Amino acid sequence: MQAVILSIGDELVLGQTVDTNSAYLSADLVRMGIGTLYHQTIADDRSAIAKAIDRAAQSAPLIIVTGGLGPTDDDLTREALADAMGVDLVLDDASVSAIRAMFERRGRTMPDRNKVQAMHPRGTAIIPNSCGTAPGIHAVLHNATIYVTPGVPSEMVAMWELTIAPLIAKLGPKRGVILTQKISTFGLGESTVAEKLGPLMDRKRNPIVGTTVAGGVVSVRVRAEFNDPAQAQREMDDTVRQAEACLGHYVYGRGEAGLQDSLIALLKEKKSTLATAESCTGGLLGKQVTDVAGSSAAYLGGWITYSNEMKVKQLGVPEELLKKHGAVSQPVARAMAAGALAHAGADIAVGITGIAGPDGGTAEKPVGLVWIAVAWRNGKKETHTDAMRFDLGNVREIVRDRAAKSAMQMVRFHLMGLPIDNLTLGRRVAE
Amino acid sequence: MQAVILSIGDELVLGQTVDTNSAYLSADLVRMGIGTLYHQTIADDRSAIAKAIDRAAQSAPLIIVTGGLGPTDDDLTREALADAMGVDLVLDDASVSAIRAMFERRGRTMPDRNKVQAMHPRGTAIIPNSCGTAPGIHAVLHNATIYVTPGVPSEMVAMWELTIAPLIAKLGPKRGVILTQKISTFGLGESTVAEKLGPLMDRKRNPIVGTTVAGGVVSVRVRAEFNDPAQAQREMDDTVRQAEACLGHYVYGRGEAGLQDSLIALLKEKKSTLATAESCTGGLLGKQVTDVAGSSAAYLGGWITYSNEMKVKQLGVPEELLKKHGAVSQPVARAMAAGALAHAGADIAVGITGIAGPDGGTAEKPVGLVWIAVAWRNGKKETHTDAMRFDLGNVREIVRDRAAKSAMQMVRFHLMGLPIDNLTLGRRVAE
Repeated sequence: MQAVILSIGDELVLGQTVDTNSAYLSADLVRMGIGTLYHQTIADDRSAIAKAIDRAAQSAPLIIVTGGLGPTDDDLTREALADAMGVDLVLDDASVSAIRAMFERRGRTMPDRNKVQAMHPRGTAIIPNSCGTAPGIHAVLHNATIYVTPGVPSEMVAMWELTIAPLIAKLGPKRGVILTQKISTFGLGESTVAEKLGPLMDRKRNPIVGTTVAGGVVSVRVRAEFNDPAQAQREMDDTVRQAEACLGHYVYGRGEAGLQDSLIALLKEKKSTLATAESCTGGLLGKQVTDVAGSSAAYLGGWITYSNEMKVKQLGVPEELLKKHGAVSQPVARAMAAGALAHAGADIAVGITGIAGPDGGTAEKPVGLVWIAVAWRNGKKETHTDAMRFDLGNVREIVRDRAAKSAMQMVRFHLMGLPIDNLTLGRRVAE
Repeated sequence: MQAVILSIGDELVLGQTVDTNSAYLSADLVRMGIGTLYHQTIADDRSAIAKAIDRAAQSAPLIIVTGGLGPTDDDLTREALADAMGVDLVLDDASVSAIRAMFERRGRTMPDRNKVQAMHPRGTAIIPNSCGTAPGIHAVLHNATIYVTPGVPSEMVAMWELTIAPLIAKLGPKRGVILTQKISTFGLGESTVAEKLGPLMDRKRNPIVGTTVAGGVVSVRVRAEFNDPAQAQREMDDTVRQAEACLGHYVYGRGEAGLQDSLIALLKEKKSTLATAESCTGGLLGKQVTDVAGSSAAYLGGWITYSNEMKVKQLGVPEELLKKHGAVSQPVARAMAAGALAHAGADIAVGITGIAGPDGGTAEKPVGLVWIAVAWRNGKKETHTDAMRFDLGNVREIVRDRAAKSAMQMVRFHLMGLPIDNLTLGRRVAE
């Protein structure tokens, strides 16, 4: 079976909002053995939406439409679906009650305009919305099954998981199975990853292996398509293991796992605690580490020493170092990491200082220059530090993101006892 | 003129990556007076890509294709475009030299497989890539102009801004002009925003006004379409002013400005400095504040006191408070904010403590409970604090994001001397 996903909204076609729903739905459809024929976005235009629904329903047996179910006048999916079906809209009393109750639980009165959300094309079914006001719609057109959900991602996901995905799972027997897996690496370029993978990347292979770059992360995607589910799983596992063996410790995780998940798991495994001292990343490293539920077992906390005074007073960075080498320097990065280690009583600490830009760069210290240091105790007494220089380009957001990720990969390599000389973006510089 | 945007990549159709390029391109096309007919995503399938290019070229005079120009065997856009055009691929020597030079600047040797990136369909032109190895392609098919760029967002943007957008701007005289603007609010629900906007949201109005919700932010989108550019600007300005007047101080910015941009601008205007003390947000608030270039003029830094010990030792939160009320409580939030104020020597400080989940909730203190406190000095002597309770649901990522945004809106309201009783998600609770 194949599906078409339609995303409705001026904000999408005008480029004001990025469509995340289509990727979510496609990923879940793949898990159900259903491929996506295409994604399409359409403006808040009643006739354009109706036409797109009609074309989709003639192209595939399953259509998912998201968006345009809100309470305002630019929400036109209900009307457009009715047009495509050649029917009128009717009011669903149960939905009016549900919407009213939703507002009352929040201590508010239902605005009159929300009543329009209880309208649906005659002959269609209502899908309840457990975490918002707009119910979904279940319709049939040209023998295609159509599910319409709100565009708000949290409401779409809830409706999808609770009602629509279970309904689709029952629609018919699957022919074969498609499994996908993703392996993520950080610290190698895409060509290097491809070279290391070698013949695994042959396009005629099944499972097929491909690479993608996003946010400095090179991901290896594996897709297995077999009639026998057990064989699909076996072949998938085998290819994933081969790919991981080719890429070594640059691999930090499978699936949606981030560097931070891998780092926290490793810290827990080693029974080590982490503290952070951030300047240019301004809390981004702490944020990424605490994205992980349960990170408090391994992460004690940190300092955002954005000003020099904070570096001196809170982390004990000697003023002489700041004067002699400047805030963005190897000695200051080491002193920040050592200060965080001592003040937090952690087993390992990381210090980041750099120039995120767009201003503040000089010929000697350009925008994108970042020093990252790791500090740890040897035999619980002496403090040791190690540091690397990174040149991360001139886009503020990228400099900060790559710095936080490089810091996590440095801590991982340190915890695994591996040399950290060879992250593509960083290099060791003599003191 | 209308455009079609095609995004190529298994990772998109499988839902492993979200397509951000289409939104970027559409937004920029709108600024040039060009509407987007549709966005479509296609798998790494040579024949499917060729068919999609063919269909697009018969639907609109301008086609932008992103992705599938990498060096690996799953990069098939070059071949597919050649198929659609009925020509073969030829090697561009200048591109080989450019790719080799790009690797040499990074101190590396060009892997042999990167040479394929210098291939292009016979009869097409090469578009140089200033920040990556894959050149773009400029082609003509069915009288449509086709531009192909790499899928890596930074390379696509550079190629678009440096070469393609200027070329399109010269393609022909524009018929009329489309202007768009976005006004962002935080702290009101979408229905309330729509009610406040009233007749401005009439679908027959020009400029037309719509609303969208994303990340708790309710955005008001305005789109003006007139033949006369001056009239379009006048009408746009007038509608934006009316909408902003309806929504008051809940509006924090226009266009792509975030809450953090507005907060930093306001701090600078009031010559105030900010410090942060974060627990459940783990550095997210600091990260968001320092997203703003130049934020160091107003933001001193902060503490990520994830453990209770860090709260006591680094911020001076009394241990009795933690024992009596627990870490997630109004008194601890106030003590964190007051501690950050004193230790950083800031004019205003914010403290956040909550339960982000998924674990750690109880009947009395459920997941999603967050206390946010603001601390400031009165006449440079006495420290005052104010606090609000927020109930932010049970999704870790959302709890953390809304907490950081609520904290920024609380500081903004405080700096403007406005009451902060009425943020939809938060409420004042007696001590």
